[in-house]
Amino acid sequence: MMKNYAQPLENLIKELSKLPGIGGKSAQRLAFHILSLDEDRVIALADSIRDAKEKMKYCPCCGNLTDKDICDICADETRDKRVICVVESPRDVYAMERIREYKGTYHVLHGAISPMEGIGPDDINLKSLIVRLQQGDAEEVILATNPTIEGEATAMYIARLIKPAGIRASRIAHGIPVGGDLEYADEVTLLKAMEGRRDL
Amino acid sequence: MMKNYAQPLENLIKELSKLPGIGGKSAQRLAFHILSLDEDRVIALADSIRDAKEKMKYCPCCGNLTDKDICDICADETRDKRVICVVESPRDVYAMERIREYKGTYHVLHGAISPMEGIGPDDINLKSLIVRLQQGDAEEVILATNPTIEGEATAMYIARLIKPAGIRASRIAHGIPVGGDLEYADEVTLLKAMEGRRDL
Repeated sequence: MMKNYAQPLENLIKELSKLPGIGGKSAQRLAFHILSLDEDRVIALADSIRDAKEKMKYCPCCGNLTDKDICDICADETRDKRVICVVESPRDVYAMERIREYKGTYHVLHGAISPMEGIGPDDINLKSLIVRLQQGDAEEVILATNPTIEGEATAMYIARLIKPAGIRASRIAHGIPVGGDLEYADEVTLLKAMEGRRDL
Repeated sequence: MMKNYAQPLENLIKELSKLPGIGGKSAQRLAFHILSLDEDRVIALADSIRDAKEKMKYCPCCGNLTDKDICDICADETRDKRVICVVESPRDVYAMERIREYKGTYHVLHGAISPMEGIGPDDINLKSLIVRLQQGDAEEVILATNPTIEGEATAMYIARLIKPAGIRASRIAHGIPVGGDLEYADEVTLLKAMEGRRDL
């Protein structure tokens, strides 16, 4: 009896099954598929993973993913530095950019405050936002965190933090299905949400 | 406007979306997830891919995947060399092994004859089976190709090829849902199919 997969194959299946949305059966299927590919295609896949992780860094200003010292949006002179849109993840920046309407800048929190999971204000990329607000000429912070309990709590927390400094804190409008992920919203819904934002 | 993903990220998404069952949206989700992991976990993933491809070879005897010179099954003295079970892919070997009943050996074709796709007998791992049959002491070849048009055609082709040499050619019984993949059959169905095999 061949009891298990050979170790390199077993290891590949194990690593693949750690990825989100990939169960044991999918991981096996992917692993066998990868082994059936030409060597140069496999190397291209493995290198694209290493390479992306190596080259993609977080922008020191806004926290967005970039392969440059400063991300394209922060470096863009035509973007309105007076408005900062705060989002939970880099994917949300890309979702927001797809509406092609927003001309301000971003701040990526890399998470949301969640007392349940022990994630406090110091565990997300919030300090650098405060520094930006103190140093820059921001006039409005649009809180575009996800419409979840954590996202709402994070938005409220940031709003309370910045309003005493005389900076406008707004929340994107409901229109995004509550409980959903911002990144899955269609462009029209996102645009409506941006237009209908209200002061907190 | 940030028109596209940065090149290393774009490249990662492109490579991931080439994998079976992973669409554009899943590839994006996976790519962002990978970038959010610690560097050592990303390296472990990338290395597991390179490593598996580098170390897993095809057994020169049966064509199954192995990380040794000869696969564990061919090298196992207790396996009955008089019976060879012919399957389309290495995954089928693992599926067959899970029934824990079969004590013979295997031969992996790495495909099936498909005139529609221009895959002829010379395009699959068939020649080495003929060599095995000429050199070895095989008495029966169990044709366990998938119950698809291509799998049936391949089974018929091999049966016709080997019967003149006085070797028994059998086909695993129907019981496996026709049109389905062998690898998804449950163990009982596979066992029934092995037991109910009939001469061609």
